[in-house]
Amino acid sequence: MKIGVFDSGVGGLTVLKALRDKYKHVDFVYLGDTARVPYGNKSAQTVIRYSLECAEFLMGEGIDLLVVACNSASSYALDSLRESLPIPVFGVIDPGVKKALEITKGKVGVIGTRATISSGVYKRRLEEYGVEVYQKASPLFVPLVEEGMVEGKIAQEIVEYYLKDLKEARVDTLILGCTHYPLLRPLIERYMGDNVKVIDSATVLALEIEPFVKEKGLSYLELNFTDISPNLEFLIELILGEVDKPRLVSLPCKV
Amino acid sequence: MKIGVFDSGVGGLTVLKALRDKYKHVDFVYLGDTARVPYGNKSAQTVIRYSLECAEFLMGEGIDLLVVACNSASSYALDSLRESLPIPVFGVIDPGVKKALEITKGKVGVIGTRATISSGVYKRRLEEYGVEVYQKASPLFVPLVEEGMVEGKIAQEIVEYYLKDLKEARVDTLILGCTHYPLLRPLIERYMGDNVKVIDSATVLALEIEPFVKEKGLSYLELNFTDISPNLEFLIELILGEVDKPRLVSLPCKV
Repeated sequence: MKIGVFDSGVGGLTVLKALRDKYKHVDFVYLGDTARVPYGNKSAQTVIRYSLECAEFLMGEGIDLLVVACNSASSYALDSLRESLPIPVFGVIDPGVKKALEITKGKVGVIGTRATISSGVYKRRLEEYGVEVYQKASPLFVPLVEEGMVEGKIAQEIVEYYLKDLKEARVDTLILGCTHYPLLRPLIERYMGDNVKVIDSATVLALEIEPFVKEKGLSYLELNFTDISPNLEFLIELILGEVDKPRLVSLPCKV
Repeated sequence: MKIGVFDSGVGGLTVLKALRDKYKHVDFVYLGDTARVPYGNKSAQTVIRYSLECAEFLMGEGIDLLVVACNSASSYALDSLRESLPIPVFGVIDPGVKKALEITKGKVGVIGTRATISSGVYKRRLEEYGVEVYQKASPLFVPLVEEGMVEGKIAQEIVEYYLKDLKEARVDTLILGCTHYPLLRPLIERYMGDNVKVIDSATVLALEIEPFVKEKGLSYLELNFTDISPNLEFLIELILGEVDKPRLVSLPCKV
């Protein structure tokens, strides 16, 4: 079985890692659209178009199941993807919501890109269950992570800048609504304190797709990127914990 | 006469503004490739491809002269553009170098995106004239400006973080090697102190193209963008000081 995973860039490798840790006998094809990263500050229309193009590429690689590892793409493009693809499609929103509902005492914070937060998708789903939701767009977190600045004074202050309101609102649970954010998790947890449970979607997502996964044979991994910049291999190793050669690919596209 | 100006996003509007201030009777067509912004953390190969696509779009609009307002694109794509276009092409590197050579006492600092600094183009040109050059990639400045965070504690600390070495090296002149950076100029000047002359390319560039400019009639301005995100109009007004409706366009492209 072959699972396709796409993200706007390297952040989705955090999701890929959780999937690979759980399913050791499945093939994975990853696509990071690094030529157009980030998606999170672009319009819904553009995010949907890019997502369809990424999916088209992965379908060409013969995948049996698609994981949208990008929260911005999951927020806007999931319906379009499900309509146009003949295979199961999973996003990262529902798993995060599910986990939050399991553990919250009633007040959930959500952080994400401008696109994810504007879509209001986390807020709507959580409020359906009577949960109070406090959300905050945190657009500088992605460039921080992409610069590898996941600790130190500047990262700390930016964490404080974005999370201050959520801490004051005394949320008991915080959803990391962007696949880049798990890399800032230690700083975020330290700032929010022991009483706040921080969750990301990767582990729950890995459980959610279980009924669709058929494991057999060895696991093969292919890492595709639309742009290979000098620090890409460093970031791959930082996230996956192993060295894998990225392959440069072209997408059928329009901008 | 019609002048085409392109940039990876909104930063090039600082160059457009300087050109419009000087040439009041010329038509301008601007293209911001906001669907793929930023260019500065992408590879040379991708930056060249994108630049050729932007130029192709502007040629289709009937321009007589092309200004590459993006430093990353000027660093890597100027030769390719000049080879493939039948009109004069100007970048933002040479004007910055020229101005720096005029005023420096011997030590020049250069800040820019990762792409611009890695290209080494400022360093090589300045060193040809026996100038000592200290350069520093400052990749967080672009997202700061795009978030409108051009003052306050976080912006100040990021300015200090990137400029510390240049200040300690006692540069007497500092080139803002990215069209986004003029928006951080007040903070940068305050940190570097009165003894350091801060220069950006826009004004010098406007002088440099003078022999090629034929003014007549009224000035027409067309603002094209490949993605229109919610805060685009705010940024246009912040930089141009006037409200102009952006037009959403598609480029013939490949990613």
